[in-house]
Amino acid sequence: MRSVTSASNPTIKLIRSLAEKKHRQEHQLFVAEGPDVLARARAEGWEPVYLLSPAEVPPWGAALRLRADERVMGQVSSQNNPPSLIGVFRQRFAQSVRPEGLWLALEEMRDPGNLGTIIRTADAAGAAGIILAGNCCDPYAPDCVRATMGSIFAMPIVKMEKTPFLDLLRGWPGETVGTHLKATESYRRAYAFPTLIVMGSEGAGLSIAAAQACATLVRIPMKGGAESLNVAIAAGLMLFEAQRL
Amino acid sequence: MRSVTSASNPTIKLIRSLAEKKHRQEHQLFVAEGPDVLARARAEGWEPVYLLSPAEVPPWGAALRLRADERVMGQVSSQNNPPSLIGVFRQRFAQSVRPEGLWLALEEMRDPGNLGTIIRTADAAGAAGIILAGNCCDPYAPDCVRATMGSIFAMPIVKMEKTPFLDLLRGWPGETVGTHLKATESYRRAYAFPTLIVMGSEGAGLSIAAAQACATLVRIPMKGGAESLNVAIAAGLMLFEAQRL
Repeated sequence: MRSVTSASNPTIKLIRSLAEKKHRQEHQLFVAEGPDVLARARAEGWEPVYLLSPAEVPPWGAALRLRADERVMGQVSSQNNPPSLIGVFRQRFAQSVRPEGLWLALEEMRDPGNLGTIIRTADAAGAAGIILAGNCCDPYAPDCVRATMGSIFAMPIVKMEKTPFLDLLRGWPGETVGTHLKATESYRRAYAFPTLIVMGSEGAGLSIAAAQACATLVRIPMKGGAESLNVAIAAGLMLFEAQRL
Repeated sequence: MRSVTSASNPTIKLIRSLAEKKHRQEHQLFVAEGPDVLARARAEGWEPVYLLSPAEVPPWGAALRLRADERVMGQVSSQNNPPSLIGVFRQRFAQSVRPEGLWLALEEMRDPGNLGTIIRTADAAGAAGIILAGNCCDPYAPDCVRATMGSIFAMPIVKMEKTPFLDLLRGWPGETVGTHLKATESYRRAYAFPTLIVMGSEGAGLSIAAAQACATLVRIPMKGGAESLNVAIAAGLMLFEAQRL
């Protein structure tokens, strides 16, 4: 393993630059941290481009293994306590949606932490994949990757522009279910498979166009004075209701 | 309204110091931001100690109203875009638990953002209150207050040491339900009222002592490869299942 002791090393500079979206887009790479998360990557058949550790680590595919001292690990890590293993991976987006099982579509998601929690929850619920419709935050942002706890490597993610997304909704073979604060039907019911759950952004909720394109609109009844739920909580309730685990 | 234009004003210094836990404990105060959140405070019968705005605002009880310029608002606010209204309130903890309806107990909660999301969710589910057992993070931390979206003013919060908490579990008149990864029973069932849901910390889960003191242990079945759910997601599933809204 090659040793790296300086933050001015070009590879380290490249990896650090991935904290910013424009550099992630330029290089199509992202950073994942921690041995448990990287074990999930391996189990799902991913191979890192770079692998950083303060200790000797065994080869992993064609990954360039770098032995970085604690200081460099701390500079690369987005966490307060840098982990013992950091991987840099090539971004993957699924190119199409196969209407099978349970899918979740998110419109205009803004918060990477919420998105990461939703990806983790969709994985736990056994969803087939996630659609990011319109102008969503980057699933490969550090806050999102961290919140997925490794599920970023398991969940197919499809990016779609608004128009093809609306076409997908209209042509979906099973049931398309949007959550809407003004819907009259409760979310507690059986859904026809394949099921596509559609959720709007934290602030604005579902767009009018997407709401109109859904076969079914449901609401999550609330008893207290809170006007709405956090979008990740609402997604969790919908996913586990639809999946009936 | 008195005008404040300097961050060295003693009241502004005091309010800014509340970002730190030791100062929140010393003064027993906390900061809440934004007109919607403060409207909820008013609806729930709270009265601020200080009220800050760049504009003239009507009196609110005995609150000292301060007209702060945008710069000072920005220095006081924990948000990127400072809101038009900031309130400083006296902390409140409920002193006892009345076994009625649905309660949620959290053991050793560490993350203020998760705690805030759980408080918001418990409010939406119509829970009677929240118990913080053992060494939990501060519900009046800025990250927590913000994530509650105003529900911090609606949800009674009780702090308990471990021993009285275990006594409460053992003496609970209805059903005490702990979530546990190794439980065999699914969480999808009816619970006897009053119901006390008990959840462990993000990392360690429920303590052995608390698990033994619960009448029922349930698990949330997971289908995918994710090993666990975010604690706020799990709390949301439990609360809405128990409440059967």
